[in-house]
Amino acid sequence: MKKINIGLIGFGTIGAGVVKTLRSKRAYLRDKSGIDINIVRICDKDLKSKRSVSVDKRLLTGSIGKVIYDPGVDIVVELIGGIEPAKYIVMESLRHGKSVVTANKALLSDSGPEIFTLAGELGLSVGFEASVGGGIPIIRAMKEGFVANRFDLVYGIINGTSNFILSKMAEKKISFDEALAIAKSKGYAERDPYLDISGSDSAHKLSVLANLGFGVAAKGSGIFTEGIADIDRDDIEYASEMGYAIKLLAIAKRSGDEVELRVHPTLIAKTHLLANVNGIYNAIFVKGDLVGENLFYGQGAGALPTSSAIISDIVTIAKNTSVFCCGSQKALDKCVLSVQGASRIKKMEDICTRHYIKFIALDKPGVLAKISGILAKYHISIASVTQKERCAGGDVPIVMMTHDSSEKDMSMALNEIRALKVIGKKLVRIRVEN
Amino acid sequence: MKKINIGLIGFGTIGAGVVKTLRSKRAYLRDKSGIDINIVRICDKDLKSKRSVSVDKRLLTGSIGKVIYDPGVDIVVELIGGIEPAKYIVMESLRHGKSVVTANKALLSDSGPEIFTLAGELGLSVGFEASVGGGIPIIRAMKEGFVANRFDLVYGIINGTSNFILSKMAEKKISFDEALAIAKSKGYAERDPYLDISGSDSAHKLSVLANLGFGVAAKGSGIFTEGIADIDRDDIEYASEMGYAIKLLAIAKRSGDEVELRVHPTLIAKTHLLANVNGIYNAIFVKGDLVGENLFYGQGAGALPTSSAIISDIVTIAKNTSVFCCGSQKALDKCVLSVQGASRIKKMEDICTRHYIKFIALDKPGVLAKISGILAKYHISIASVTQKERCAGGDVPIVMMTHDSSEKDMSMALNEIRALKVIGKKLVRIRVEN
Repeated sequence: MKKINIGLIGFGTIGAGVVKTLRSKRAYLRDKSGIDINIVRICDKDLKSKRSVSVDKRLLTGSIGKVIYDPGVDIVVELIGGIEPAKYIVMESLRHGKSVVTANKALLSDSGPEIFTLAGELGLSVGFEASVGGGIPIIRAMKEGFVANRFDLVYGIINGTSNFILSKMAEKKISFDEALAIAKSKGYAERDPYLDISGSDSAHKLSVLANLGFGVAAKGSGIFTEGIADIDRDDIEYASEMGYAIKLLAIAKRSGDEVELRVHPTLIAKTHLLANVNGIYNAIFVKGDLVGENLFYGQGAGALPTSSAIISDIVTIAKNTSVFCCGSQKALDKCVLSVQGASRIKKMEDICTRHYIKFIALDKPGVLAKISGILAKYHISIASVTQKERCAGGDVPIVMMTHDSSEKDMSMALNEIRALKVIGKKLVRIRVEN
Repeated sequence: MKKINIGLIGFGTIGAGVVKTLRSKRAYLRDKSGIDINIVRICDKDLKSKRSVSVDKRLLTGSIGKVIYDPGVDIVVELIGGIEPAKYIVMESLRHGKSVVTANKALLSDSGPEIFTLAGELGLSVGFEASVGGGIPIIRAMKEGFVANRFDLVYGIINGTSNFILSKMAEKKISFDEALAIAKSKGYAERDPYLDISGSDSAHKLSVLANLGFGVAAKGSGIFTEGIADIDRDDIEYASEMGYAIKLLAIAKRSGDEVELRVHPTLIAKTHLLANVNGIYNAIFVKGDLVGENLFYGQGAGALPTSSAIISDIVTIAKNTSVFCCGSQKALDKCVLSVQGASRIKKMEDICTRHYIKFIALDKPGVLAKISGILAKYHISIASVTQKERCAGGDVPIVMMTHDSSEKDMSMALNEIRALKVIGKKLVRIRVEN
């Protein structure tokens, strides 16, 4: 039996879930894994609010130092989110000989390589299963299960809030604002939903996956990101008529010596498994050279799934700490930052995809000829065109599906089209993936 | 850097794939995980046939003893399949201080508890990721990723051959025999496809999953198993009209203090993710009390995906062997056999499901009244009835969907119905899952 002392920093919804779960599962875990997990410190700046779990007051502290400098703490669990003071907590904990478990994708996206390098130098571990996909064991799968694979493609739905909104829009044929209101009322969207609907949260998580899968150290802020706030219910309907669903995808794709990284609403065929992932669920596709395509699906957020991931990290680190006496932990952690042949990030303008584009033609005669002339000038060929019924004002939506074209060509063509007097200002462009 | 010497027994398609992959990935794995995997012995009774990879003749041996008694071998990889001599190889390897990696579900289904107990007593590991789901890291996910979860439900498509056949029957509207012929021509079905189409292979794998998830030691041969050979293309079509697909599912479900274990063709709603898993792919649903529903999808067979799983086990065991110096391996392996509250297997006759049933009415007037009278006698209520168009001979297929009923009631009712003179002998009964 091995006793592991946990210092927890951040006693919000997730923190309380971890405390509650560790308490109710303590005997079970002791029996199952031989690890006795003991919470010795809980730190939060707010010690007054009521939590879903009551704890011995002697465990509580408002001082970070009481956790990270306590020699009795073996593992620090960081659950406050954001970059500072989370980074300080993680780095100082490592410097004081403690392994760290974190769910903080914003921090890992910003400073992952720095953190993993320090941990590797000190022979300590950083567990981050909870940072992507909630309870889905995707980090473990990529790090260990697929250890022998070269990754070619990692992509998926990794933000439950935006997936819930897009699913509701499709299901109930409602607008973005109406779906957002439902998400808020159910507690699936925060009061300020920016991080989720802007795609930023997905970009942070993609950064973590890209580091793990492709050895690229791309900050989330440096990844091309488009959110879902501009998606119109009409676009969802038109896409559906063509056999597609619209999902917010985070995509990392090997492309020669480079890696494509991007987050944007995407048309995917309804027959694709991802098209059938609805509500708050997440799903991640991983393509490796040995395993081919694998999909991982589950709840991407919530106190219990996240607790499940955090506890799995604690147990793994607790088991591995016994490795220390043999001094081989350094090598074991190297894999996190492994560079797998590709390290440069492909410029967005060079990326090629098919596109769904929608124009509003204000005045019909000749419009199509003008649009297709401009597209032809930029070598963009049209796969299909549909002219929709007139809108209230007499304007006519024209929906096109193109063949592959570069971002650069498409952007230039759309700029020229937008300048036409016969075209309405709002022009929709959504990328398509196979 | 840690060097691990591998002795491989079974140099068929999978064995050759492992050798090829370990060779091409050796430097990559050394760099990534700090483990240098070195094949020192390859054993097969047939040393003459040409393989997809050529090896130094000095590595080859026809003698099992040359591998399992060689003090230079750290890990024995058993890839011959079947129960004997595989069991002898695994047990003797353990007794001689070697950890084992195996893809052998038949063996684990028959003797898993005995093998894991011996390994636990000796402080050795048995890796079996490749035994279920090919390259899908399902064992790792259940053992480690979901370590804190109580499992409530584990079910899925875990035989690629039968899924390929059912998918082809649905897609091309062809018979079982025609689809089987295609599977054979593509190399997806063996010359003798019994193990796959009878459901036995799925039952072996379900036994492994049930041991891991529910702590029940059920042999595959003791699990209720129905294969797919009797599935008619009409049933696939009728099910489809009602919004269902037919899949061969392996199901382990917590039911009070007991566990339901069964393998049979199953109607599942087309909106269910499993309904969209086609071809040779496998997919496994796992429901845990913390993580909720998770799905794992990927190629369930093939030399490369299987090699991926085998190598992940080798790397994990190689890392963990350093734990030995601290003497805590025993506890770590306990989880394999953990009893999670449930250990009794529910009797099949007590299991309740909805049913799809098809009768051929030879003579119409009064038939429906007779059938529904018998069903009512056994408290089976009918959710829907459809009378299909007359077959060639003038017989009329009647398709029913029932509400929940016990296996026992349904069997007795169908026996009585079968005895009716106005009903054809072939009576179809397929269970339905939500």
